[in-house]
Amino acid sequence: MNLKTALQMIKPLDPEYLQKAQERIDQLTMPRGSLGRLLEVGRQFAGITKKLKPRILRKRIFTFAADHGVVEEGVSAFPKEVTAQMVFNFINGGAGINVLARHVGAEVTIVDIGIDFEFPQLEGLAARKVARGTRNMAHEPAMSRGEAIQGIEVGIDLACQAAQDGVDIIGTGDMGIGNTTASSAIIAAFSGLPVQDLTSRGTGINDTMLKAKVATIEKALALHKPDPQDPLDILSKVGGYEIAGIAGLVIGAAASGIMVVIDGFISTAGALIAYEMQPVITQYLVAAHESVEKGHKVMLERMRLKPLLNLDLRLGEGTGAALGISLVEAGVKVLAEMHTFAEAGVADKM
Amino acid sequence: MNLKTALQMIKPLDPEYLQKAQERIDQLTMPRGSLGRLLEVGRQFAGITKKLKPRILRKRIFTFAADHGVVEEGVSAFPKEVTAQMVFNFINGGAGINVLARHVGAEVTIVDIGIDFEFPQLEGLAARKVARGTRNMAHEPAMSRGEAIQGIEVGIDLACQAAQDGVDIIGTGDMGIGNTTASSAIIAAFSGLPVQDLTSRGTGINDTMLKAKVATIEKALALHKPDPQDPLDILSKVGGYEIAGIAGLVIGAAASGIMVVIDGFISTAGALIAYEMQPVITQYLVAAHESVEKGHKVMLERMRLKPLLNLDLRLGEGTGAALGISLVEAGVKVLAEMHTFAEAGVADKM
Repeated sequence: MNLKTALQMIKPLDPEYLQKAQERIDQLTMPRGSLGRLLEVGRQFAGITKKLKPRILRKRIFTFAADHGVVEEGVSAFPKEVTAQMVFNFINGGAGINVLARHVGAEVTIVDIGIDFEFPQLEGLAARKVARGTRNMAHEPAMSRGEAIQGIEVGIDLACQAAQDGVDIIGTGDMGIGNTTASSAIIAAFSGLPVQDLTSRGTGINDTMLKAKVATIEKALALHKPDPQDPLDILSKVGGYEIAGIAGLVIGAAASGIMVVIDGFISTAGALIAYEMQPVITQYLVAAHESVEKGHKVMLERMRLKPLLNLDLRLGEGTGAALGISLVEAGVKVLAEMHTFAEAGVADKM
Repeated sequence: MNLKTALQMIKPLDPEYLQKAQERIDQLTMPRGSLGRLLEVGRQFAGITKKLKPRILRKRIFTFAADHGVVEEGVSAFPKEVTAQMVFNFINGGAGINVLARHVGAEVTIVDIGIDFEFPQLEGLAARKVARGTRNMAHEPAMSRGEAIQGIEVGIDLACQAAQDGVDIIGTGDMGIGNTTASSAIIAAFSGLPVQDLTSRGTGINDTMLKAKVATIEKALALHKPDPQDPLDILSKVGGYEIAGIAGLVIGAAASGIMVVIDGFISTAGALIAYEMQPVITQYLVAAHESVEKGHKVMLERMRLKPLLNLDLRLGEGTGAALGISLVEAGVKVLAEMHTFAEAGVADKM
């Protein structure tokens, strides 16, 4: 499915189902509203699936991995090779996302959408490389507009595949040395806020490198002048392939009527690209957590998303999304399994 | 085990094991500290169990249920009978705690520690009634000092039983119409802060009832003058049996070297009683979430506990503890299962 078609397929949730879900929630054996945000996401899931007793059986997290030309500027504490090395770690089941996905019973698909390394065929790795990393945004646009669209359509395609496989909920994730630089650049371009207010230490850089990171982003924005009204312009000039893939995943999932749990800073940059193309998309989104990266809060507020967790996470990979999926599942199970006052023979409010 | 012996058995965690756990964490394939609070609780669990690759196999949540004489004063939106009715709902598996405990793979033990109802023998119900509810604190002390100790020792006993059964982690929970009144009274007695700053709507009372609730607590405190230096005095005069049981559970668990995940406002009132007897106890505690009840924040700050979740929960029963246990388990699994840089062949920081 191409980008234009997918965007046209995204529809607002049916208020009638949301109302019906709320009526059922109000009959459950607890004081009204006493499970707070857990049942807000439960109701949202009911609204998306149009089921009053929905179930979540199949969960899939997509971890999009890509390299970034801007790493040449010295913006990360880790060498670029770590992107590919971590992909092998993912495939071997030894990374954070593997542990947490197993914990919550989710599948993980690793997507090579733009790593500067040629992988052999590996089980669990979707070979969807658009290019061997972006170009260095400090000197030229990271991608062409066509490459950015290609990246988005990889994500749309994977979401449609998940829908065909009967996946009930999708999580996003990322891996890419240099990608907090791209994400800070994206929110700076949309918001017009000072770069230094949107840029943190990523993998853990020191003060000198942080200064260089801010200066690099400022230079790239001054050079390319991305148009804040044109999400594709921003994505292609200062974004990354994993961010394009996540944007597409979000768009494809919303078009297919599947809830998406957004991981941290980089995933939210992808979701933001999608949101700026079609704001209705937030009805399909849940923000898993608020990252330590300070640009994240600005992104979430722009989309009016309130994160479920605040655990000072900043790993990415989809680790926060895995934990968020488990919370959504908890809310959905309460909706489906908790007895009503009538069923339980419990007196409602006096 | 009696209260005095249990308190004496509580030891501070061994700093050497905490240090060893931190060294292992620093070798895991992620930027240092990037899983934030998840690995803080993972390290705490390692420190408690003295294992560098600990496991959580058996989880048990105790939901202590009791009635409150103060309900006569019109402090709750639900009739007193709901306490017993909800116990049947728990036993039938239809309540929030049942759904969420199943979700996280925890057992649930419901404890009748002071319900004003005679139950038949029921599977899953521990019959440990000290009395048929407290007396009305607006007129007389809720319990005698002896009854309060009896309640605490029920909790200690259940914790020791759990230790014998090989339980790896314990969660607390409560059910008792009227028990937010007792909990607000407890934190007011310890802190000396104005009652109205510590009292919220419990099950959802209106403005008039909220005023009456505040006035009732003020009256009870003025009448009994509980001694802020004497946790047992406070517990017996304005507390409740479920709160006594939770205090004992926390003490017994710490004495047995088991981590306890504390649920919301009422559970934290119980933990606070234990903490005021033996401050070292916080090393064994994790606060699951911050409740909507405003007195909760004051309790947590007093114990320097930072809650893991902020989902606007206010149901109790152990529902927040169930979700908290799953997060601790996630942290523990990362500690045990994530590969190190050396194992994974990933380059560490440049």
